[in-house]
Order: sequence, then structure tokens, then C-alpha cells
Amino acid sequence: MPDSALRDSAPIDSGLLAPVRAGVAAASLTDDVAWLRAMLDAEAALVRAQATLGVAPHQAADVITKVVDTTEFDVVALARAARGAANPVVAVVGALGAAVAAVDSAAAQYVHRGSTSQDILDTAAMLVVARTSAVILADLRRVEAAALRLAAAHRDTVMAGRTLGAHAVPVTFGLKAAGWATAVHDAAKRLSRLDLPIQLGGAAGTLAGYLESAKVEAGDVGENYARLLGEEFAKQTGLSAPLLPWHTNRIPIADTGFTAALVTGVLGKIAVDVQVLARTEIGEAAEPFAEGRGVSSAMPHKRNPALATLIRAAATQTPGLAATLASCLPAEDERPAGAWHAEWHPLRELLRLTAGAAETAAELVEGLTVDVDRMRDNLGMTHGLIVSERLSATLVPLLGRTEAATAIRAASLTAHHTKTPLHDVLAADPAVTAHLTETELADLTRPSGYLGAAQAMVDETLAALAWPQLDTE
Amino acid sequence: MPDSALRDSAPIDSGLLAPVRAGVAAASLTDDVAWLRAMLDAEAALVRAQATLGVAPHQAADVITKVVDTTEFDVVALARAARGAANPVVAVVGALGAAVAAVDSAAAQYVHRGSTSQDILDTAAMLVVARTSAVILADLRRVEAAALRLAAAHRDTVMAGRTLGAHAVPVTFGLKAAGWATAVHDAAKRLSRLDLPIQLGGAAGTLAGYLESAKVEAGDVGENYARLLGEEFAKQTGLSAPLLPWHTNRIPIADTGFTAALVTGVLGKIAVDVQVLARTEIGEAAEPFAEGRGVSSAMPHKRNPALATLIRAAATQTPGLAATLASCLPAEDERPAGAWHAEWHPLRELLRLTAGAAETAAELVEGLTVDVDRMRDNLGMTHGLIVSERLSATLVPLLGRTEAATAIRAASLTAHHTKTPLHDVLAADPAVTAHLTETELADLTRPSGYLGAAQAMVDETLAALAWPQLDTE
Amino acid sequence: MPDSALRDSAPIDSGLLAPVRAGVAAASLTDDVAWLRAMLDAEAALVRAQATLGVAPHQAADVITKVVDTTEFDVVALARAARGAANPVVAVVGALGAAVAAVDSAAAQYVHRGSTSQDILDTAAMLVVARTSAVILADLRRVEAAALRLAAAHRDTVMAGRTLGAHAVPVTFGLKAAGWATAVHDAAKRLSRLDLPIQLGGAAGTLAGYLESAKVEAGDVGENYARLLGEEFAKQTGLSAPLLPWHTNRIPIADTGFTAALVTGVLGKIAVDVQVLARTEIGEAAEPFAEGRGVSSAMPHKRNPALATLIRAAATQTPGLAATLASCLPAEDERPAGAWHAEWHPLRELLRLTAGAAETAAELVEGLTVDVDRMRDNLGMTHGLIVSERLSATLVPLLGRTEAATAIRAASLTAHHTKTPLHDVLAADPAVTAHLTETELADLTRPSGYLGAAQAMVDETLAALAWPQLDTE
Amino acid sequence: MPDSALRDSAPIDSGLLAPVRAGVAAASLTDDVAWLRAMLDAEAALVRAQATLGVAPHQAADVITKVVDTTEFDVVALARAARGAANPVVAVVGALGAAVAAVDSAAAQYVHRGSTSQDILDTAAMLVVARTSAVILADLRRVEAAALRLAAAHRDTVMAGRTLGAHAVPVTFGLKAAGWATAVHDAAKRLSRLDLPIQLGGAAGTLAGYLESAKVEAGDVGENYARLLGEEFAKQTGLSAPLLPWHTNRIPIADTGFTAALVTGVLGKIAVDVQVLARTEIGEAAEPFAEGRGVSSAMPHKRNPALATLIRAAATQTPGLAATLASCLPAEDERPAGAWHAEWHPLRELLRLTAGAAETAAELVEGLTVDVDRMRDNLGMTHGLIVSERLSATLVPLLGRTEAATAIRAASLTAHHTKTPLHDVLAADPAVTAHLTETELADLTRPSGYLGAAQAMVDETLAALAWPQLDTE
Repeated sequence: MPDSALRDSAPIDSGLLAPVRAGVAAASLTDDVAWLRAMLDAEAALVRAQATLGVAPHQAADVITKVVDTTEFDVVALARAARGAANPVVAVVGALGAAVAAVDSAAAQYVHRGSTSQDILDTAAMLVVARTSAVILADLRRVEAAALRLAAAHRDTVMAGRTLGAHAVPVTFGLKAAGWATAVHDAAKRLSRLDLPIQLGGAAGTLAGYLESAKVEAGDVGENYARLLGEEFAKQTGLSAPLLPWHTNRIPIADTGFTAALVTGVLGKIAVDVQVLARTEIGEAAEPFAEGRGVSSAMPHKRNPALATLIRAAATQTPGLAATLASCLPAEDERPAGAWHAEWHPLRELLRLTAGAAETAAELVEGLTVDVDRMRDNLGMTHGLIVSERLSATLVPLLGRTEAATAIRAASLTAHHTKTPLHDVLAADPAVTAHLTETELADLTRPSGYLGAAQAMVDETLAALAWPQLDTE
Repeated sequence: MPDSALRDSAPIDSGLLAPVRAGVAAASLTDDVAWLRAMLDAEAALVRAQATLGVAPHQAADVITKVVDTTEFDVVALARAARGAANPVVAVVGALGAAVAAVDSAAAQYVHRGSTSQDILDTAAMLVVARTSAVILADLRRVEAAALRLAAAHRDTVMAGRTLGAHAVPVTFGLKAAGWATAVHDAAKRLSRLDLPIQLGGAAGTLAGYLESAKVEAGDVGENYARLLGEEFAKQTGLSAPLLPWHTNRIPIADTGFTAALVTGVLGKIAVDVQVLARTEIGEAAEPFAEGRGVSSAMPHKRNPALATLIRAAATQTPGLAATLASCLPAEDERPAGAWHAEWHPLRELLRLTAGAAETAAELVEGLTVDVDRMRDNLGMTHGLIVSERLSATLVPLLGRTEAATAIRAASLTAHHTKTPLHDVLAADPAVTAHLTETELADLTRPSGYLGAAQAMVDETLAALAWPQLDTE
Repeated sequence: MPDSALRDSAPIDSGLLAPVRAGVAAASLTDDVAWLRAMLDAEAALVRAQATLGVAPHQAADVITKVVDTTEFDVVALARAARGAANPVVAVVGALGAAVAAVDSAAAQYVHRGSTSQDILDTAAMLVVARTSAVILADLRRVEAAALRLAAAHRDTVMAGRTLGAHAVPVTFGLKAAGWATAVHDAAKRLSRLDLPIQLGGAAGTLAGYLESAKVEAGDVGENYARLLGEEFAKQTGLSAPLLPWHTNRIPIADTGFTAALVTGVLGKIAVDVQVLARTEIGEAAEPFAEGRGVSSAMPHKRNPALATLIRAAATQTPGLAATLASCLPAEDERPAGAWHAEWHPLRELLRLTAGAAETAAELVEGLTVDVDRMRDNLGMTHGLIVSERLSATLVPLLGRTEAATAIRAASLTAHHTKTPLHDVLAADPAVTAHLTETELADLTRPSGYLGAAQAMVDETLAALAWPQLDTE
Repeated sequence: MPDSALRDSAPIDSGLLAPVRAGVAAASLTDDVAWLRAMLDAEAALVRAQATLGVAPHQAADVITKVVDTTEFDVVALARAARGAANPVVAVVGALGAAVAAVDSAAAQYVHRGSTSQDILDTAAMLVVARTSAVILADLRRVEAAALRLAAAHRDTVMAGRTLGAHAVPVTFGLKAAGWATAVHDAAKRLSRLDLPIQLGGAAGTLAGYLESAKVEAGDVGENYARLLGEEFAKQTGLSAPLLPWHTNRIPIADTGFTAALVTGVLGKIAVDVQVLARTEIGEAAEPFAEGRGVSSAMPHKRNPALATLIRAAATQTPGLAATLASCLPAEDERPAGAWHAEWHPLRELLRLTAGAAETAAELVEGLTVDVDRMRDNLGMTHGLIVSERLSATLVPLLGRTEAATAIRAASLTAHHTKTPLHDVLAADPAVTAHLTETELADLTRPSGYLGAAQAMVDETLAALAWPQLDTE
């Protein structure tokens, strides 16, 4: 590409290196322009709140709101200017002030009045979280609903349960899908319950600037003014009003990061399950077909589990980012020199990786192809050894612990080496047939007869999780 | 030390390398013996639950419980044996079975019946979390109560608010302490609300082994047996009963890790604040005196902020550990080959670092010495510049934005370079005295007159947080 | 901002949320366009290597190289298309093939011949690392040189050494600066020694595709062809040729991440030092003045340590990102399903945070203002206690350990409480004056007399580190 | 277990929760006693160095060395006492001083003379790293040698290459094992090249205490004394002598952490490969058999990949710990208040997890069972599709890109759905047989004919890595 393409353009992060979020709905809710918009929205909401309390003219609030809604700001220039103050708000306030002044110089006096950078940026961050979360939650509901539909459809589909990669005992695919739904449900619940507060503290958390400018404007404003301003600001932004400013109590940020890691983690569980099931030798599930999906640049026959891979790559990246946010909790003084500044970008990454993973997972689970025949075939691969736990439970009381163990181990080895069904091997052992008939043995070694409470748990899960009923109507 | 001391003993981790937790109350609740005990408790609770439901003899449950309570097991040998199965439960079950058999061979048949390693270890982990959390919560309440007492005592103690290390506007020490209390309160609330469920799934999450052994023992056990067993197991352990087994839905573990990082993070905030205030040049606070505390091996005059340093060191370590737990969320199949196994040790580290930080923080905040004189002296260091925000708010309407900024900047530089109070410099500027009397100027530049809602917010915090009333009675 | 601004544009990441790298020289070396360019460069280098070995026409290599150098590709569209294959190369190859075919359809047959996505993306990653490292190294040399100039200039500038925030013993600012230089030197050395290999393995690391297509083109290509192709590809790209393909041996990636964390970490050390020294109460150093730098949106008098804060924010973010790359080392099979895909974005973030930190640190250290008077004043704050270690060393042999300790402790308390120089207090103690004359005491308590090897170590550092001689000519 | 077992004993960390390191050789090199011993060794080495330079009596050095070598100290009591100074050295010095004084009170004056906690603890840390690394390196050489033996033995063993879990093109098991060896070799090289310096700086990095006490003892000690003391201390400990004290240049610690994460990461790669190959459906490799190994507590037939799981669990834990060490690099002032203190425990964890993983990997790779038949069988699972890349390379020049792609895709689908060898399907396509004879087709679709440079690369690897020749003699 020509050098001009490198030098003239704004730095783009389109997801080329993180395709899980390339072009997803939340991409435009988390990029620089979206953050800039949220800062501007916070400024406008603040002056509207002040106007509502009578300490700024409604005219100024209207003008500022309109300028915020209609002006295009140069985000690249603002980003570079952000270096001066180590945060972008000083530059944004300058640009907004100039834009307002160009329309109404009196109104410009009310831009950022009594405020401080952190009030705007923290409030903007919470707005970005709120807006992105709504999209993520909708996608998580799709994932959960789709997983529950799989659980219902495959309530009785028997497959090999695998632990440490080896066949253990039979399970059902319905139970596996019910597990996915439950985990996604739990994680989504946390996301939906995040407390997203406005930030309103002024220069050092006392709101002195707000009070002073209010008094200058309107004289005595009453002793509840600070609280009322917070409540009105919360109302204007749709966020909550906290007990105290949280400028150095960073729980809302750390908690968002944790929750994002939790959400991608449970989606990552679905992804790794799909990847195992999609292995060539296992072949029990496949990703939904789409033109160009899962294509290899070298091998025309391949269909890679691309969606699961995208999700897993997201889940691999979120823990480190969440840890970074946690490491910012010890925020010294009334505003830390770095801990605050290190939060913004990791928070954005967490949000967009999570949003990308959720949208991708919805597509994956909604379109997952299940190969019931391969599940059944694979279940038989160990010639019946998959029910050895059951045989043990039955034979120990009949033969005693040692003899039962010996009989099962011997039969297992024979079955394995001679590729004979375990049932047949046991039927040839007089120690066993002394206690069990052929029919009883057949019954004991049938995988579908050893499902425990799998089906009942699927039913309980379907009954307990309410969303799918809404989603599938 | 003689080689024998190295070779013969069990590997000790007494906190020599993590003194924040050396000898704290929770140390003995989280070490190997405590985990072993929790595993044994889980085994005993399981057979008691089975006995209650009529599928094991009460006699066996009694014997197993008694053996669990009275036998000393060799934890070092068990740890080494744990390598065979990649988890300690197989060895623990072997040792427990042998110990029970030595007393009552019939009872030994009921050890670990129908069960699987993960049911025991996950349940044990939740028991350890529950036991340790109780101690942590008690310490967090001490921290919160002490911080609220400081908030009340220093409601009107003015000090410099600092942002990015520089004086910003005045704050009160009471507001700072109220912020500590609020953050600790929020973090403690999360810890107290952790959902700590039993694990009960059997070999691959279907409970088939439990059902099979129950049927072998007692015939038809009814279709609700699996659910009832879970509820009874929960009752016997004091944990909750989940909707589904969570063998591959690791939210309870990841959430505990997140919460531990949150708790240490907010305690870390207190620590870094104390460290700043205790700096030689600042001197506004000091750690409680104790013989030998804060001693330097080289410098006899020093009193290091040792408690704060211990806490901060803990808060530095928890984010990476919590990230490790989050990275274990994508748990493939019905039991992952490594993701489960990587959780145990980081979880223990998180718990004991958090417990150590909480106990240390209680000591720190309860005994914190505040130097009100130094706070006042430091407040004056900038010769009044600390109220420049207020002057700006007042002068802009009087002089216009540009002229006000020029006047304040000029006066600030003069005050700074000539070490003259800003008030006096401004009183010599006719542009200012044209609008403000000497008295008004004095009033405007008094730091204690520019506290915003600091005091009101302290009052609101004291009213909102209920615990200290209990604690200080 | 109008909605169209949100929806129509490419997602921009200009550094608004990470101002440490906003507009720095390396920004355009690491954005999506730069990565795309590197992938295209890898494709062009590959076909040139093939042409050199006679298995592709030189004409095709020329055409492809020219198309690569002159065509603008739509990076946003390519990013979205990357979702299909879970990596961007398939889409890039498609677009490149089409662009070449539009010029010369025969040449288009030689695009990506025998190749695989990972060969191109890994090689591109190494190219991006190489290009960015060159810029970072130049900035690190500036930092080192500037630190060495400070070390030389302040070889004899005495200041308080501080440990755990408290005055310990005297040091020199020159020694502190020499420490900065040495750490930056060490970290830069590692960066300069990173081994950056081409990737050449084909679909699964055997190079079968390359060999097959070469044979199809040119018949027998000799048994060394694979090795020769690697060497020529390395030559064409300026990278090294590894022993084996490293598709699942991710040391080059993890090592780059580690090194980036190391570099930002040592720069972070400089930043936290500056932040301490710039505190209002300490005031021993200040950031270089620049219009608009360190401006507060609320407080006209403030000058925040903005550059140090930017650097520290970078250093806070890199460890978690480096951990993510380390967590990708266990790459299963011949190409992992997620571990590879999770590397690209964190690697880019590490590079640009490091580049931003280095450029910012160069500006910081080159322009740092040192206040020698404040250093001297602060040194006196403890009334001589800062040399108590020395007194101890002297008095113990004279008075015995216990009596010496008692005398020093008593004198220290008196000096502290009465704000009397320690020297005067001791001069009034007959136990002391029995052994030491007034002059000896004065000598012993003069901070500048207790600098140990500080000055000699500065000299040794200046002699040992070669770069500054070049840089300061 | 009885409560007394909980309360009376020292806190044990035997590896019960991290069985990868339970009882391994390095366990006793990294536990509290080993660290204590290293601190004591550092103290003894320091006084021996001082004696060598004539500033302490040889007698004192001998006595202190002897006391260090023969006294048992109470590590639990020391750990608790460590809380007072936030580091263990103050307490250790007290205990050592008392023990020496009990033997020779004059010698006791020379304990820790001129020194500071950090000099002892940092030097001790490097000693622990050196001692543990030697063991780790020996195990890594075993892993490398065993992997190279596998590479040689399976140079021609064809198996399916897998990317994103799906069959890609054929590879050889020898090439996979050569990749393991190479990665382990690279990681071991880094470990062996770690620079492990003594720490010698005194209270704040100037060595003033050492110089002063030397002068008090011996008068003028010459201007090179500080450097000579460092060199002699290095000689006494076997560590290197750095240019400057590194009290706040934490590269040696961070680098050790990185390297540990690198080593476990490449071992983790072996582990995940083994886990895939050991899956029931794949069955191409199995862990070495050992009584009790891989045993399930529930399922008698299972043989879990226990060793691989232990290794993988270690590799999951190291990245977060290494990130913690990296986060300690920004160490403010002359000794940071927390960043230093947070290093010790994560460093120990990294060392012992790495040592455990290395010892476990040696056992795993040395005893790995390879099932060549299953490899061949699995290779055939896709009925020849595994060579589709080769067919593509051959047919494109013959048929043109579009027609070739169509023919291969159609044949692939037919082969897949009818379970017919791709070779037979193609042999029935006149478009293909117009260009290729039956023999040519058979040749083209034989997996063992499409191995690229796999075998040559194995040969080159065997030639390039020198260690195994030593190890296998």
C-alpha cells in the first residue's frame, strides 16, 4: 500500500487483529467516536441538570445539547491534544466550548461549569458500558435461548461424557447444552445487575466547584444542592446516583471488567466444547455453514470451527485485561497519577471483546449442527467400558470389592484388546454369570440406561430459566 | 541450617515470603491441613446425607464422621500421592477408606459412594471459602467501623486534596476516611453475598453413580432422589444447592477470585493513601506504634509504614491470581484436563492474601495517627493557590473569562515566586479590588471555606452505613 | 455528534483512551493499515524468494510487489471478512489476488503459492515488531543519553534517599539518574537482541505446499529447497531464518511481549520517581514546561506530571497483555484453535504502548527540571536523622551496641520533637562528647559526607554505557 | 482431623493443591526453609567477603558461617516477626545475631554489618533461583533428549497434521517431537543464561553503610572498596557482580519470572499435544504406565493423562504470576513500599511450578507410548481429503483454478458422504483422468508421499541440538 495510506489517515482499529469484534453491532458503540460522544453527552447532561436546578439558563442547556448532538469533532486531533493533560477531557471541553461559543457565546460560559475531567470521563465510561451492555445482553439471551432449545431437542441424545479427554460415563447432549444455558444465564444476570453510577465530585471529590459556581449564579442553593445535582445528573444520563463520588473507589470499573471476563469465560466454555466435538476424529458437532466460513487458505476440504475459535481467542484475552483493571483499584490521593489513566483502554477492549464474543456465540449456538449418529458411534468406541462405573456399583455388593475389581479390570482389558463388547466378555465369566442373567447384563451395559438424573436436570433447567419462553415465542 | 532441616521436614509456607498473612487467623484455615480437613468434611457430609435419605446406614455415617474428626492423616504423603491422579482426592479416599476399615469394615464400603474427585474437592473449596470469608468479613467490618470513626472525628479536618500528586483543592480527612469506609463496605457486601454451592455431579455431571449405588442399596429411590441428595448435602455442609452441577461452570471459583481481588484492591487504596500521608515531607498520618514495627535493619531513626506496605504487596499479587482463575472458565468437556487443576492453589493464595490484608488493615486503620497540624501546614504550602478554582469561579463573572484568567495566573506566579499569600497579592491588584473587598478576598481564599459538600457527605455516609453503630457500642 | 459520524466511519483508535501513544511516531507503524501492509509485504517477499529460486517468474514477483506497494485495500472490509476464517489472511489473499489479476492474470497464480495464513501473519507480525522496535530503540537511546547527562550534571547533587516513602540516608540525584540509564540500557539491549524469524511452514509445518508447487512449476528442486526458500524469504524480509517453523513454538511472540513489559516497566520506574519528586510537598523535580501540558480542567494553578502519568499508565497495562501472550504458549496440534488468534491484538497493544512510553519518556527525561535547592531543603527536614545509620556505625564501637542505640534513639526523639539539629542535641550529650569532638560530630552529621560510593558509581556508569557519547556529540 | 492438627503445626504447603510440584526435587529448594537458608548464606558470604578485604576478622566470618550451617532457626516464628518490618530479614538478623553471640559475642558484631534487608533478601532470591535452575535445567535436558529420541525414532511415522482441530495435511510424529525439543532447547537456553547478580547497595543504594563500617574497622579502605566488596561477595555466593545495585532496577526478578513462564509454556505445549493424542477417539499416544497413575476415583477403566494435566495446570498458573513480577518493575524511590514486597512469593511459586513441570515432563516424554497404528488409521479417516492441498497444487495448472477447485470440491464431498477413498472418486472423473493416470493419482493421494521437508527438518534438528548426544551416551 502506498505510504500516503499509512500517514494521512486516522489510526484504524477495525478488528483486523481481533476479528471476533470486526463489524459487530457493538463495534461502533465502543470506538473512539463513541467514547467522544459519551463525553459530550455527559457534558450536555450536566448542564441540563444544572438548568433543571436553576443554576444555569435552560437556553444554555438547549444550545449545548444541540451542539453536542450535531457537531462533528476531530477525534484524532483531540486524542493528540489529550497528551497535554494525560486525559482527553481538557481538549474536548476546549473544542466543545469553542463550538458552543460559535453559536452562542453566553451559553459557552456554562460548558463544564464547576466540573473536572474525571467527572466527565467516568460518567462517559459508564454510559459506554450501559450502551454496550444492552447489546451484549440481547446476544446473551439469544445464546441462552438457543442453548435451551438444544437442551430440549437433545434431552435424550446420549453421548460419551469426557473427563480429562477420556470417555468417562454416558451423558446427554441436552445436559451439556443445559449447562451452557445456565452458565450464560448466570453471567448475563451479573452483567444486567452491574451498578453504573454517574461520577460527580469536582476537582477533588467535594463538589466545591459545582457549589461555588451555583452560588455565583443563583445565590444560596440550599444545603441539599450537591445531592440534588447528583440525582438530576443521574436522571439526565440514565445512570445511578452513588452515595459518594467514586473517583478513587474504582469498584464500578473493576466490576465491569470482572463481569466481562466472566461472560467471555462462559462463552469460551461453549467454544472449547464445540471445538472438541468438531474434531475430525470426533465429529459430533459442526459450526453452522456459511459461505466462506471456516475456509483455509491452503486446504480446500477443511471447515474450521472459526466461530468457536474467535470466541476462544476473546476469552483468552479478557483475564489479563480484567487483572489490569483490578490493579488500578489502589488509587492514591484524590486522583491517582496513572491508575485512573490505565483503565480506559482495557475497559474498552473488554467491552468490545465481550460484545464480539456474545454476537459470535449467538450465531454459533443458534446454528450448531449436531451429529447424533457420531455421538452414538463414539459412545461405542470403548466396547462398553463407558459403563464400568455402573458395573462396579453392581458387582461390588455381589462379589466383594476385590473380586469385583479384578473381574471388571480383566474384562475391560479383554474387551479393549479383542475389541469385543464388554457385555459379551462378562457373559463368558462364570463369576459374573453366577449372579447376573444375560438380560440383566445387557441392561447394565447399555449406555442409555446409565444417564442418572441427566434428563430430569434438563427438565428442571428448562423450567427454571424464564427467558427462552420470551425469546422463542 | 543443617541439611536435615531442609530434607526431613514437610515443606512449610509460613508466610516468610508473604508476611501479610504470616500467623493471621485465616492462615490455619487455608493451609494444606485445612483443605484436607475440608475434603474429609465433604466426604463425611456426603455419607450423612445418604444416610438421611436412607441409602446408607446411619452407623456408617457416624463412624465415617468420627474417623474424619479424630484421625490425623499424613498430608505430605497424600500430596505426593496426588500426582498419580493429578488431584488429591483419590489418595484421600484411599487413606480415609483404610482408616474407616480399621474401625468398621462395613462402614468403609460407604466412603465416597457413588462419588467422584471433583465433587469432593469443589465442595471442600467452597467450605474453605466459607470458613475464611467469615474471618475476612469480621476484619472488614473492623476496617469499616474504624474508618467511619475517623470520618466522624475528622469531619471538619481540612487538608490538601491531591490529584496526580499535586495540591488541587481542599478536602477533609473525614471525607477521605468516609471514602475508605464506603469502598470497604461495598467490597464486603460482595464477599458476603458470594454464592457458595456444593458440588454434586458424579463422574460426568449426571449423578448416575449416586443413583446407581442408591438403587443397589435401597431399590427404587424415587425420581427426585438426585435433587434431594443435593439439598441434603447442602444442608450437611452449610452450602447452597445449585440448579445444576457446576463442574464445568466455574463461576463460583472465578467469582471468589474476583471478589478477593476487589477486597484487597480497596484495602490497597487505604494503604497507598497512608503511604502518601506518611511520607517524610508530608507527615500527615502515621501507622500505629508497636514495638518492632516499621523497624529498619539499617537505620535506627526510621519508622516505615510496614502495615500499609504489607497490604499493598497483597493488593499487587491478587489481580494476576484472579486472572488465572478467570482463564480457567473455558473448561472443556465434562471435566477439563488442566483448567480445573489450575484453580486450587491460586484460590488458596487469593483467600489468604485477602485475609492477611483484611486483618492487617484492621490494625492499621484502628490505630492510625492523624497529624492535624501537618495537614494545616501543608495546606498553606502553595500560599493560597489551592483555592484558585474558587477564585476563578468568582472572578470570571466579574472580570470576564480572559481577564480573570490573566489576573489569577499572574497572581499565582507572584504568590509562588515571592512566597506571598495569594490573598495579599490579589489585594494589591486594582482590577480585583475594584470588585472585591479585603474581607471578601480573605473569605474567598480561606481553604476551610471551600469544602463544598465534604461535611454533608460525611454525615450522609455515617447515616447510610449501619455496621459501625453495632461495632462501636 | 451526529449519528452518521458513528455509523459511517471506520472504527478509529487514535489513542483517545491511551494518550500515551496518540500521534507518536510508532502509531502509524502498528495500526491496522500497518499490519495489512506487513502482510502484503510478506506475500510479496515470498514470491520474490520463490522467483529467486526459480520456481516463480520474476515478472510475477515484480507485478505482485508493485501491486502490493501501490494498491489501497479496504482494511475495514478485510477485517469483517476475517471473521470467516478467524484470521485476516484468507481475505487479504483474495483481495491481493484480485488486484494482481486485474493487472496480470498470470502473475495472480503466484500469489500465496504453497502458503498458509499463519506463514503470512506470523511473518507480518515480526515485520511489525522489527519496524516498531527500531523507533522504540531510538527513543530508548534518547532516554538513556538524557539520563546519563543528568547523572553527570548531578553527580554531586545530594538529596534524601527514600525507602518505603521515608527518608533513609543521603543519595545523589546523579546516582538515581544513573540507575535510570542502566535499567533502560539493559531493557533496550534485550529489545535489540530479540530474534525475529520469518515463519515458513505451510499448512502444517512441513512446507509440503511450497515443495509441491515448486515441483509443479520447476520439476525437481533439490533436497535443500525448503531450507533455501526459508533463507531467501528471510533475506527478502530482513528477518532471521529459524531452525524449524515456529507455528506452535511461540517463543518469538511471548518474548516480544515480555520485552515490551520490561521496557515499559523500567520507564515506569522513571515515571514513578518523577511523580514522587514532583509532589507539591517535595518539589524536587518538574516535568518540562510545554504550553497546555499538565493543565487541569478545573484548577488554573496546577501543573500535573502529565508525561510521567502517561508512562505509568502504559506500564500498568503491559503486564496483563504480556501474560496473555504467555498463556498462548501451549499451542496444541499443528495450529491451535484460539491461542494463535489471541496473540495478534495484545502484541499490537504492547508494541504501541511501549513505543508511546518510550517517546514520552524521551521528552520527559530530556526536559526534566531539577530543583537542587528543594533537594537540599528536604534533606534537612529530619534535622540530621538522615545520617543516623552513620552515627550508629561510629558510636557502636565507641559506646557499645546498647548504649549507642539508646543515645541515638534519645537524641533522635529530641531532635524530632524540638526541631533541633541532631548535631546540636548530640553535642549536649556527655556520653557522646566524651568520644567525639564538636568538629567530628559536625562532620559525621553532614549529609554530603555520607554518600558512600554514589559518586564513584556514577563515574563507572558513565564509563560503562557507550551510547551517550554518540548521542551527545 | 483433630483441631490440634490444625492449630499446632506450621502451615504446610506440600503441594496438595499443586501436585505438579509435590515432592519434586526442587520442592525442598524453594520452601520457606530453603529461602531462610539462602538468607543466612547471604549473611555468611557477606562477612566472609568483608573478612577477605580485611574489614572483618576471619574468626568472625568463620563463626558466623558455622552458625549459619549448623543452627536450626524457627522459620514460623521468623515469618510472624517479619510482619514488623514488612520483610523477614530484620527478624532473621536478630535471630542470627543472637545465635552467634551465644557462641562468640565479638563475632556477633559482624553480623549484617553495614547491610540492609534488601541486600540480603535479593541476594538470597538469586541464590534460590540459581539452585532451583540447576535442577530445572537438568530436567529440561532430559525432556529435550527424550523428545529428540522420539524425533529420531518416528522420523518417518506419518500422522494427521491438525489445525484448529481438523485434519490438515500429513505430518510426521518425528517432526512434532523435534518441535518439542527445539522449543524446550530455546527455553532452557534462556534459563541457563539468566544473569543472577548479587545485591549490594546498603540502605539506599550508595553502599555508605558498608564503607562507613569498613572505615571504622580498618581506616581508609581505598576508593575501589565498594567495587571490590561487590566482586568478593559475588565470588563468595557464586553470583555475578552488577554494574550498579539493582534495588530499584528489578530486571533480574522480572526476567526470571518471564523465563519461568516461557519454560512452563513450552512444556505446556507438549502437554496439550499429548492430551489431544490421548483422547479416546484419537488414541495415538498414551502416558507411561505407572501403578496408580491416571486413576479415576469413580471409573475403573480410565487412564487419565495425569502427567500432561499436571504440566498444563502449571502452565496455566505461571503467566499471571509473571505479570505480577512485571508489575513490580516501576519501583519508586530507593526502595518501593510494596512493589519489592510483592515479588518474593510469586517468584517462589514460579520457580516451583516450573521445576514441577520440568520434572513431570521428563517423566512424560521419556515414557510416552506412541501408537503408530492409530496414527495410520486416523490418517485415513477423511478418505484421502488430507491431501487435498496437494491435489489442488497439481490440478490447478492442469485444469485451471476454477475447474480444479470445482473438481476437488465435488470429489471431496462425494468421498466424505460415500466414505469412498478420494483416489477412487477422482479416478472416476474424466476431467481428472484426462490428465492423470491411475498410478499418478494413487501416488498423489498417498499421505506418506506428501510430507514436504518433514524428514529433512528432523535430521537438521537432530544435527543442530547437541545435548542429546551427551545424554544418550
